[in-house]
Amino acid sequence: MTFRLCYLLAPWIFILLIPGLSKGGKLLVAPMDGSHWLSTKQLVLKLKERGHEVVVLIPEVSWQMGKGQSYIVKTYPVVLTPEVSWQMEKGQSYIVKTYPVDYTLEELDNYFEEFLTAHLHGQPFPLNALALYNISKHTFRVFFVQCKNLFSSTETMQYLNQSSFDALLTDPIALCGATVANYLSLPYVFFMRGFPCNLHYEASQCPSPLSYVPRLFTFNSDNMTFLQRVENALIALLELVYCNAFYTEGLKFSSEILQREVSLVDLLSGASIWLLRYDFVFEYVRPVMPNMVFIGGVNCAQSKPLSKEFEAIVNASGEHGIVVFSLGSMVSDIPMKKAREIADALGSVPQTVLWRYTGEVPSNLPKNVKLVKWLPQNDLLAHPKTRAFITHGGSHGVYEGICNAVPMVLMPLFGDQMDNAKRVESRGAGLTLNILEMTSEDMSNALKTVINDKKYKENIKRLSELHLDRPIHPLDLAVHWVEFVMRHKGAPHLRPAAHDLNWIQYHSLDVIAFLLVVVLL
Amino acid sequence: MTFRLCYLLAPWIFILLIPGLSKGGKLLVAPMDGSHWLSTKQLVLKLKERGHEVVVLIPEVSWQMGKGQSYIVKTYPVVLTPEVSWQMEKGQSYIVKTYPVDYTLEELDNYFEEFLTAHLHGQPFPLNALALYNISKHTFRVFFVQCKNLFSSTETMQYLNQSSFDALLTDPIALCGATVANYLSLPYVFFMRGFPCNLHYEASQCPSPLSYVPRLFTFNSDNMTFLQRVENALIALLELVYCNAFYTEGLKFSSEILQREVSLVDLLSGASIWLLRYDFVFEYVRPVMPNMVFIGGVNCAQSKPLSKEFEAIVNASGEHGIVVFSLGSMVSDIPMKKAREIADALGSVPQTVLWRYTGEVPSNLPKNVKLVKWLPQNDLLAHPKTRAFITHGGSHGVYEGICNAVPMVLMPLFGDQMDNAKRVESRGAGLTLNILEMTSEDMSNALKTVINDKKYKENIKRLSELHLDRPIHPLDLAVHWVEFVMRHKGAPHLRPAAHDLNWIQYHSLDVIAFLLVVVLL
Repeated sequence: MTFRLCYLLAPWIFILLIPGLSKGGKLLVAPMDGSHWLSTKQLVLKLKERGHEVVVLIPEVSWQMGKGQSYIVKTYPVVLTPEVSWQMEKGQSYIVKTYPVDYTLEELDNYFEEFLTAHLHGQPFPLNALALYNISKHTFRVFFVQCKNLFSSTETMQYLNQSSFDALLTDPIALCGATVANYLSLPYVFFMRGFPCNLHYEASQCPSPLSYVPRLFTFNSDNMTFLQRVENALIALLELVYCNAFYTEGLKFSSEILQREVSLVDLLSGASIWLLRYDFVFEYVRPVMPNMVFIGGVNCAQSKPLSKEFEAIVNASGEHGIVVFSLGSMVSDIPMKKAREIADALGSVPQTVLWRYTGEVPSNLPKNVKLVKWLPQNDLLAHPKTRAFITHGGSHGVYEGICNAVPMVLMPLFGDQMDNAKRVESRGAGLTLNILEMTSEDMSNALKTVINDKKYKENIKRLSELHLDRPIHPLDLAVHWVEFVMRHKGAPHLRPAAHDLNWIQYHSLDVIAFLLVVVLL
Repeated sequence: MTFRLCYLLAPWIFILLIPGLSKGGKLLVAPMDGSHWLSTKQLVLKLKERGHEVVVLIPEVSWQMGKGQSYIVKTYPVVLTPEVSWQMEKGQSYIVKTYPVDYTLEELDNYFEEFLTAHLHGQPFPLNALALYNISKHTFRVFFVQCKNLFSSTETMQYLNQSSFDALLTDPIALCGATVANYLSLPYVFFMRGFPCNLHYEASQCPSPLSYVPRLFTFNSDNMTFLQRVENALIALLELVYCNAFYTEGLKFSSEILQREVSLVDLLSGASIWLLRYDFVFEYVRPVMPNMVFIGGVNCAQSKPLSKEFEAIVNASGEHGIVVFSLGSMVSDIPMKKAREIADALGSVPQTVLWRYTGEVPSNLPKNVKLVKWLPQNDLLAHPKTRAFITHGGSHGVYEGICNAVPMVLMPLFGDQMDNAKRVESRGAGLTLNILEMTSEDMSNALKTVINDKKYKENIKRLSELHLDRPIHPLDLAVHWVEFVMRHKGAPHLRPAAHDLNWIQYHSLDVIAFLLVVVLL
């Protein structure tokens, strides 16, 4: 039974047939830099295509969002001037509004270098945890500096105050978007992958039973042993401390701007809709809330034919096919020692390996490995000759692996990548390696296993079929809900009454106490 | 911004364009009688239209599902023979498989008469509660007799055993569908409005915080006072007792059939997908689970032009327009005293009232009231001259009221109707009357208020706009998920791991005890 195609086509057909019916609104977008921007940009372009006036608010200095630092931006060049400017390409143009910042691109790059080093340094516990804590705190400080710079730009604030937006779309991790929305009294939509410390569930009043909902960074699955459940509970306790520390400075600033004391939950609970890049094919099943919309795989594009250059490499790979290897848009360089080990491992398989790598070429690079500065990842993964995907486990890449049913070898580096890797592994669709500790042989074995043991391909194929069998494409779903909030000035009917209860009331502790007293009397 | 229409049209356009892409599966349907069947039937017809072989399993004696007892069935006549038979109308035909039962239609009607009397008798507490408890227990006994009759029919069971179905679709309240599915080892989908005692949430492992999720039959909203929260907690405790009593006999039978001890949660938790006729425009916002699909308003059809007879009445109503009055498909007769009071009240408004009523005509029937044996409810509600809807508050009618933005006067009789009425009232879109206690004046005032106080129309219009603004029509969404379960033989990836934990583990009581011991030591 393969009538799934019809549903997949449905929204596209309608867009082709009745473009004139869409009448535009005005949307402000406060995105996040780095890989976060990749899928946000797809949504922004789609909303623009639907006839809305979309203004993207970005700092003058950025990795992915600015002028041509990455291939994605190259595809749709944006004109970067301090003034409001339109993109030149008709139909794919959105307005970019930049604001000056107190740091240079070099400083930003240095900071990311430090961030990565803290993850790859391999110190013993608790030094590693402390290093990660400090660098994460520093990350948030960078966000807050950016936000302060935005509110200090008189010209930008004047422009924002004078524009009448219908809603704001933001990746909320830096809080700045939510602060801007509150400042301008706009309804807002979150578009995101996840928060540390379960904040997205806490702020939306969504129960997260510790017994089967693993906290991020525990790398546990939803099927925990007793000790893992203890660990899960301890981490949840720890989160009460460290996430507050991350956000103290940002909240102080937001409170100043909004001229009232705001908590993390205050700012986040105001979101009308949470667009979450989750799919339960990949995520562990857990309670959710009605204002959460699941758009995992939103970034999986329809595959395009390969360029002649890549087509030639793939065709030359013969019966063994190819392996696609990328550590994501943010990392294209690794220490030489590691690069040599990896090169050794890659040489042990008969497949041609396409490796996205811009660092110094390891001297032991085998003949079957082609180094490239950039590769059309989704199109290569969609090619029938692709046998495996070596990835850092970023959520965009993992979903592309799932969409195209390619078994994965995961080498997580930072953020949610370890948890993503664990999820893929727990589904039998890939194997995870610790990039710090793995030997060349470990990597070779893992790669051979996911290619030759048929169960990996079968499992990822099953996940892929389930993931792609949906009534509406996640990107169209995201568009619908952003437009919904623009049309109705929010979605107050999806706000749970739990927001009006305090902790004691929510958990019915007062009711229990009262009933106990009555029984005892 | 009115680009909503595009989205509404999308699925229909696709169905018109690519009907050939849908390749059929084989579905068994075990529906519920009465008003429950109304929307189930719409889904059944749609699934048949999509090219599936759909077999509907019904008792030889029934109210709505059999030969022509109701107008709905009259529209799509089914051939009722003990053998498998095809409907004659091309394109709207599904297979009906009947099985003999131990009761007559007269006995069934008498039982419903008793059921209604128990609700309308107006005894003081606790006599009324006891009467309702007893009649409800009797209702469940009727269900179980039906189920026993099904499994006793050698011919039917032989047919079921020999047919290879892909999945089963059922309204689960009687448990029989879930028992059949387990007996035949079929994946199953629930299509329903609600269970008593929060069973649908309990069985799906969905948290229901007592502090803001009102239990059914409390008539509380999600915004409860302290005493209402106490009441909510007490009702939840009471539910532990009475729902078990309702189902004891049924579960004993299911256990015999399945040759293993099954609990209520065992049978219900096996559902792959819960299609819930809920929309949060109407329902109170609460946690949900990923295998719950919300299809409130699934029964709202595109309105059709009125017949000449009804068109004439509506046109003759002049500037004041009309009021639509129906107590649902199950109730068309009320005691004469009540009928006279109602007639008086209806006479006090300048609108023409179309009253679906088959009882003895009250002698005081005013000139502006037209009694009809049946009325095209949705089409009348969609008419711009309709000013108000007097309804018993059944979920189908309430959603038709919301879809067509008609303010309501609600006179709930039984089941979830009181809770439905409370929900409409709490949204400021209608007024509720106690049919037992109301005077003629109460009704007259309520009717005049919802017609003349503009805020009722404004509120229902807002609800209607929110409700109709969705990325896909609920009926298409229901079709998608039934087909999903047919294609993939279930949806195990949407099953929460909580099902594998016991009560102590789920609530982390063992972890808390362990941590307490560690701290104390």
